[in-house]
Amino acid sequence: MKIISRRKFLNNSSKASLAGTAIFAVNNSVTKQMKNIFIHHVYFWLKDSSSQTDMDKLVAGLTKLSKVKTIQQFHIGKPANTKRDVIDSSYAVSWMLIFDSEADQASYQTDPVHLTFIEDCSQLWSKVIVYDAVDAEK
Amino acid sequence: MKIISRRKFLNNSSKASLAGTAIFAVNNSVTKQMKNIFIHHVYFWLKDSSSQTDMDKLVAGLTKLSKVKTIQQFHIGKPANTKRDVIDSSYAVSWMLIFDSEADQASYQTDPVHLTFIEDCSQLWSKVIVYDAVDAEK
Repeated sequence: MKIISRRKFLNNSSKASLAGTAIFAVNNSVTKQMKNIFIHHVYFWLKDSSSQTDMDKLVAGLTKLSKVKTIQQFHIGKPANTKRDVIDSSYAVSWMLIFDSEADQASYQTDPVHLTFIEDCSQLWSKVIVYDAVDAEK
Repeated sequence: MKIISRRKFLNNSSKASLAGTAIFAVNNSVTKQMKNIFIHHVYFWLKDSSSQTDMDKLVAGLTKLSKVKTIQQFHIGKPANTKRDVIDSSYAVSWMLIFDSEADQASYQTDPVHLTFIEDCSQLWSKVIVYDAVDAEK
């Protein structure tokens, strides 16, 4: 074991803190481009598109579903007010999940929390479209 | 000025490091749910879906487009290998953008970098679907 003086230990310790801060800042900038992720984006159309109650039930269900451990980040959305020919704003709820890998997404599909969600909420929707995406360039 | 012993300073210093780690971990957990964002998710279908060259051109165009300053985070994707009835994997490129607000997304639409992208790349695609989403609950 190498013996270092207390002063040296203190110096090293404060350098380590600075280095940690710097790494964090660099990561923040780098992460503008999301990489090495699996995006699972689901759009739900409700059977009764006018029902705020059904929308609330679905959002509550998704909030519970978000507890699945392999989910790295998620967003529960609704259509924005934007209108253009290419925009599909006919859906009721957007459910965007970020996983670390395809394997994590696969395990989410069979997670008991997911199966409970389907049991509790599937009667609410008439249509679902899923887009799964991985990095275009590896 | 309160004088503390070196040992106490060391103890405090290591507690500070631990506290820093804990805060970081808590933040990580909080940011699992993305909130107060505007998701602009675009799916492109190529005129020539078999052309790797056209796909590469589009990805290169989007990489340039990602320089628009109001973009907070972005992902350039392609279909994952998942296959289920509800999954649409017929698109060529997924372009997912996160903005801070609807206003930022609106300014992106008319940003000169965006207009150049459309001029350079719009001949590549046959179809585009856009889903814009804001938080379901504010």
